Amino acid sequence: MPVMNYRKGTEKEKSWIIEETSFNEKYTGKCESVFTQGNGYLGLRNSLEEQYLNTVRGMFITGTFNKASKDEVTELPNVSDIVNMEIELNGERFSMNENNIKEYSRTLNLYTGETCRNVLWKGKNGDIVHLSFHRFVSYENVHVIGAYVEIKPVNCEMKVKVVSGIDAQVTNHGAQHLTEFSKRAFEEKFLQMGMVTTESAVSIAVSTVHKVFQSGKYTEDAASKIIDDRRKIHAEIQLVIPQGETARVEKISTVHSSRDLEYVASGKEPEGENVCRDGLDNLKEAEEKGYETLLEESKKVWEKIWKKQDIQIDSKEDDAQIAVRFALYHLQIMVRREDNRVGIGAKALSGEGYKGHSFWDTETFIFPYFQMAEPETARTLLEFRYKGLYGARKKAIENGYKGAMYPWEAAWVSDGEVTPYVTGVNVHTGEPMICLTGVIEQHITSDIIFALWQYYAATDDQDFMDRYGYEMTIETARFWNSRLEWIEENNRYEIRDVIGPDEYKEHVDNNAYTNYMAHENMRLAAQVIACIRDEKKDIYGKMQKLMQEEGTSLEQLEEELKDKMKKLYLPQPDEKTGIIPQFDGYFDLKEIDLSVYKNASVVGTVFHDYSGEDVQGMQAGKQADIVELLYQMEDITTPDNKAKNYVYYEARTLHDSSLSKAIHSITACDLGMEKEAYDMFMSAALTDLGQEMKSSDAGIHSANMGGVWQDVVMGFGGIRIRDGHLRIAPNCPKQWEKFTYPLYWKGNELHITVCKDGVEVINEGEDFEAEIMGQTVTVSKGKNEFRA
Amino acid sequence: MPVMNYRKGTEKEKSWIIEETSFNEKYTGKCESVFTQGNGYLGLRNSLEEQYLNTVRGMFITGTFNKASKDEVTELPNVSDIVNMEIELNGERFSMNENNIKEYSRTLNLYTGETCRNVLWKGKNGDIVHLSFHRFVSYENVHVIGAYVEIKPVNCEMKVKVVSGIDAQVTNHGAQHLTEFSKRAFEEKFLQMGMVTTESAVSIAVSTVHKVFQSGKYTEDAASKIIDDRRKIHAEIQLVIPQGETARVEKISTVHSSRDLEYVASGKEPEGENVCRDGLDNLKEAEEKGYETLLEESKKVWEKIWKKQDIQIDSKEDDAQIAVRFALYHLQIMVRREDNRVGIGAKALSGEGYKGHSFWDTETFIFPYFQMAEPETARTLLEFRYKGLYGARKKAIENGYKGAMYPWEAAWVSDGEVTPYVTGVNVHTGEPMICLTGVIEQHITSDIIFALWQYYAATDDQDFMDRYGYEMTIETARFWNSRLEWIEENNRYEIRDVIGPDEYKEHVDNNAYTNYMAHENMRLAAQVIACIRDEKKDIYGKMQKLMQEEGTSLEQLEEELKDKMKKLYLPQPDEKTGIIPQFDGYFDLKEIDLSVYKNASVVGTVFHDYSGEDVQGMQAGKQADIVELLYQMEDITTPDNKAKNYVYYEARTLHDSSLSKAIHSITACDLGMEKEAYDMFMSAALTDLGQEMKSSDAGIHSANMGGVWQDVVMGFGGIRIRDGHLRIAPNCPKQWEKFTYPLYWKGNELHITVCKDGVEVINEGEDFEAEIMGQTVTVSKGKNEFRA
Repeated sequence: MPVMNYRKGTEKEKSWIIEETSFNEKYTGKCESVFTQGNGYLGLRNSLEEQYLNTVRGMFITGTFNKASKDEVTELPNVSDIVNMEIELNGERFSMNENNIKEYSRTLNLYTGETCRNVLWKGKNGDIVHLSFHRFVSYENVHVIGAYVEIKPVNCEMKVKVVSGIDAQVTNHGAQHLTEFSKRAFEEKFLQMGMVTTESAVSIAVSTVHKVFQSGKYTEDAASKIIDDRRKIHAEIQLVIPQGETARVEKISTVHSSRDLEYVASGKEPEGENVCRDGLDNLKEAEEKGYETLLEESKKVWEKIWKKQDIQIDSKEDDAQIAVRFALYHLQIMVRREDNRVGIGAKALSGEGYKGHSFWDTETFIFPYFQMAEPETARTLLEFRYKGLYGARKKAIENGYKGAMYPWEAAWVSDGEVTPYVTGVNVHTGEPMICLTGVIEQHITSDIIFALWQYYAATDDQDFMDRYGYEMTIETARFWNSRLEWIEENNRYEIRDVIGPDEYKEHVDNNAYTNYMAHENMRLAAQVIACIRDEKKDIYGKMQKLMQEEGTSLEQLEEELKDKMKKLYLPQPDEKTGIIPQFDGYFDLKEIDLSVYKNASVVGTVFHDYSGEDVQGMQAGKQADIVELLYQMEDITTPDNKAKNYVYYEARTLHDSSLSKAIHSITACDLGMEKEAYDMFMSAALTDLGQEMKSSDAGIHSANMGGVWQDVVMGFGGIRIRDGHLRIAPNCPKQWEKFTYPLYWKGNELHITVCKDGVEVINEGEDFEAEIMGQTVTVSKGKNEFRA
Repeated sequence: MPVMNYRKGTEKEKSWIIEETSFNEKYTGKCESVFTQGNGYLGLRNSLEEQYLNTVRGMFITGTFNKASKDEVTELPNVSDIVNMEIELNGERFSMNENNIKEYSRTLNLYTGETCRNVLWKGKNGDIVHLSFHRFVSYENVHVIGAYVEIKPVNCEMKVKVVSGIDAQVTNHGAQHLTEFSKRAFEEKFLQMGMVTTESAVSIAVSTVHKVFQSGKYTEDAASKIIDDRRKIHAEIQLVIPQGETARVEKISTVHSSRDLEYVASGKEPEGENVCRDGLDNLKEAEEKGYETLLEESKKVWEKIWKKQDIQIDSKEDDAQIAVRFALYHLQIMVRREDNRVGIGAKALSGEGYKGHSFWDTETFIFPYFQMAEPETARTLLEFRYKGLYGARKKAIENGYKGAMYPWEAAWVSDGEVTPYVTGVNVHTGEPMICLTGVIEQHITSDIIFALWQYYAATDDQDFMDRYGYEMTIETARFWNSRLEWIEENNRYEIRDVIGPDEYKEHVDNNAYTNYMAHENMRLAAQVIACIRDEKKDIYGKMQKLMQEEGTSLEQLEEELKDKMKKLYLPQPDEKTGIIPQFDGYFDLKEIDLSVYKNASVVGTVFHDYSGEDVQGMQAGKQADIVELLYQMEDITTPDNKAKNYVYYEARTLHDSSLSKAIHSITACDLGMEKEAYDMFMSAALTDLGQEMKSSDAGIHSANMGGVWQDVVMGFGGIRIRDGHLRIAPNCPKQWEKFTYPLYWKGNELHITVCKDGVEVINEGEDFEAEIMGQTVTVSKGKNEFRA
């Protein structure tokens, strides 16, 4: 089984290089996902050039959603395969197996975004050849993909055939999203396929060209012919390479779509032929530059990113440094920072899993990173949700509520809810399999508002609030206002029949997380109404008009909110134990020993022994729920109770979601549980990067990448936003000497170094007040040191 | 490279077993196609159970045409893969390569229709195991497919995992034809997927079940779980097999569609759920019976077929016997004999090539077999064309003609022409690639009528003529009547701008084959009109009404036909050379030496040196054209001229079509060119069966299967229908002692044995007159011997 090695890089490359040290065709999915390359616009799974049986090739363009058939859910189409290069070496097909590989190393360089595979291959007839494959997706010109193979015969002259091109036969596991409207070989070398999605009519142009070099010299006349097949076009290149010399086949590709940001200004989507023309123009320019220049351009962008974003950990003990950079790398390639029409998928652009849809994963797990490290990107993500008000209002109406009820799963902003209510049929019973999250997992609405106000606190972005934030807050509060149920016998409002963060529990009443977060949403709205009435007459007027169109008024809403907030049931800690019930009746559920399931190498093992219904009746949670709540809203109980709740619920949590361990780790940090915090952190950090070779096949866990960042910065870094202020209560792990992370606070660029005995803050901006290690202090421009 | 061995069978199995003697994953397409199993309803490519990269799995149901998207051509959907069985042996995936295969034999038994693969496999850890795979498609219950694998560990105990089920992720090279409406595992073992074609709304149910036996004993409780994935459902079976014992996993499957013949009586297509229900019921019955019983049932049908249809060749010298049986086998599995709604595809049901469409291949190459060996099936095939009058009339109108102009490519009878006019875009120039055959390759209309009258002569099926044949003859003659062009300067009718059988020549004028065949079509129609006026008042009335609706009358048509026939230009032999020009100006074309291209192992090599336009200007033909004409209509010139034309045109023919060599061989027989005839025959007979490992990938050449039969019976057997009489002018090849073939002549079942010095006819029916070896004789009931 292949092993992931984190220590390949030395000196300048230390903790930047992830290596797969051997090859096994059973486990191609692992590096296809975790070595995914991209730039937020484009995601390219790191499939190998030559084909293997279990490969799942994938290339995704953000925002190109399509329904493969009327009964299917909208998803990101697998655009086509441009990674392919079938190589024949003296008549034998190049393919790796344990007998013919003498040396093997495959790496992702997090610093440059380039992947590289070096193979020393011995053919059946004894021919030995060195092959070196390189690839990157440009961060400078987001449409461009560069790749090359260098072939060097070691002990013989070598006849080489390379068949390489565009293969649009790929589907999403058998579901066809694209039909082609054009297929061309311009100037006998620029290959292009123009395609259009079957339902959503997004035009996509995929173009590629090959450049051949013999012993470093560009060879215009390499024997090449075009192979035109159904839904495919390829070039066949023939070479003879003398012993000891090196030939190189570069493959430069571009990918364009009619949904591209570049076309937004014109006000309408371009015709497919224009997309093709732009794709070809871009390709010609890229071909002119060639691989090295294109890579250099892209590396410059990555250099800037790392200069700003790197977290540096001084530690001799483990692989935390590279794991954190791995998370940052994926956070950087999952977001299209300029485009407020697109969200972030739960697998980002690294696989077909979760169909490219956005969940609460974005706001609760990923967003805090952008909010504190790239506030302008965070704003774009919130604007995506502002645009999503359209679909959220639609969803509220469909469900019989008022205001804006955000979709559990979001694709296009106009779509509204895209969670399928029926996900299929239970093959055993024939009963439809109902997915309730799109209907009753409702906390996402307040999660978005919580994130929004965190952002506002961190940035003071009043422009955002004026344009979008206030409206979002009021509209979502209107949803909760209509959602609460008056329960006469309890003389209070309740929120019944929901799913909380712990998705193993369906149809629960008064999930604490949901109720508290709804209350917070309502509280913020009431505060907004009061604020804009006094200070923002124009916004007040605009919102009042909106309310009146809906047959109500801001006054009436404010009154109702105040009344209902007071009467909304917020589950309190049990007087004896201090434990907050996760939902009504939680304490009555059966307790079982979960240790065997918690320690399994794969998730979901509890279902080997118990049915879904069994688990519903057990104190066995999928993920952080009360612990998530106490992380986000620590003031709802005492620190002592927080500790008790952590211990109680952690014991009852299976961590069957990647959204769980990082949050537990942060809370463990807060509680001074050093070992537990660190173990949970490393476990979270290795979710995709670790030695488990199958669990990332469908794509990386994008929320967990944010979770890892939060764990470092919010957990070990001890960052929290409290009442509009920055709090730093650092907990440097004993494994680390110190660590440094960047942060934006109200427009001030900070570089924070946490060490064993304190914290150092370099403030590139203005003075501000903060709470650091329990003291209210001024963080002045320049360097500040705070010791315990 | 694998070798096809024809001599595996001995004693009773002699010349019945085709063997592939070794395995190479580069050449999986060969046996997938040539070992295709079926029954006319269903065609199943003989893919291996475990997956290989180059495999093209295929299962096709006759008549289930669909368009994958609006711009694509209707084609037979690749239904789904039920052949798959992924096997793990002590943790290692079973897959064959040159290192782990100790013994290998894969056979198709033509007599039983069963395929069998025996492999002695050695795992990486030294485990040796014998695997034996068997499969058949039932000819008794046409919906049923039976398969099993037997696994016998030789030197160890073996843990075995078998993952097997239904994989509907397959597409037609990336084009998706089916969406699923149901997926079930009934009683935890009967797996089923219900699917529907995307455009034509044909419902298809594919069902499968596994039965496990340990040491011959049925094991109800073999650990099995269901794996439900996107567009897939599989069972995972786990076994432990003691050393030396054998376990067996049977896989019984059924395939049903809403287009099935069984539903026709009800007058409407059933709902998908009914198709699923019937599929499941059928599967349960089949499972009850099990593999052996199902195979026995199917073998009984095959036994009957072979008893009736076998051609026996007494020869010690070559593999002609098995090659002829191979052709008969494919002729038997390509036809759905009871169903007049479906034709025969150019690749039958053995691959995606030619999209399942019917060409002139059916009538000109395949039909003579059924006409003489299975007249009732021949009638069904003609009824398909009668039903196709609807589409033929549509095509005539679309092209500005009258009557019925048969489509060059036919799918559903209502479709009319399904040849795409634009087959795509020239990837180099961007120009649309125009396919002219659907417009100007017009001879198919008279080819069908020629076949019809041959059938009538052979069968005296007056009922067919009364119901369908007269109408078809008149309607097609009306097409020609409207098609002929009066050329004032030549003072004659001509047929300009056509493609003849030689498709390397486009836009030619007065292709001799086309003109003569059109003339024959018109002649027959004029004869019909005279006949029905005198003898068939009711038919005359009906046809007259039809003519009147079209603004004409039978009288007018008759008059016009007579006039135009007289004035239609029929190219005559050159006075000096005796050569009939293939079309106007043929003799002016450039002559080049074709020998290098004719002797190439693959077709189309002339285009390596010349463009299509070049070849258009050369005396270089794709296939029999004048030679085809002289085979069908020998009376148009003298025997001496026929010989001259054969020699002249054969030298100018590349045989780049599988429709060429058998026809040449027959003509060579007629001309007494023994060696040439036999060489051409063996070459035709080995088109698919031979040692060329790539040329059958897209499917077998179904016309050539008929060609081989014609070559034996019409060529060596010397059978011909002349003026309504049977002629036998046998030419026993010197390689053969004698050969025996069955034939129906006007309802009389004949068994004809040709030997060196004459012919023996066993007549199971009534006395009739025939021309045998130049003498008019009476063939009496019982045995008749005729010596030279």
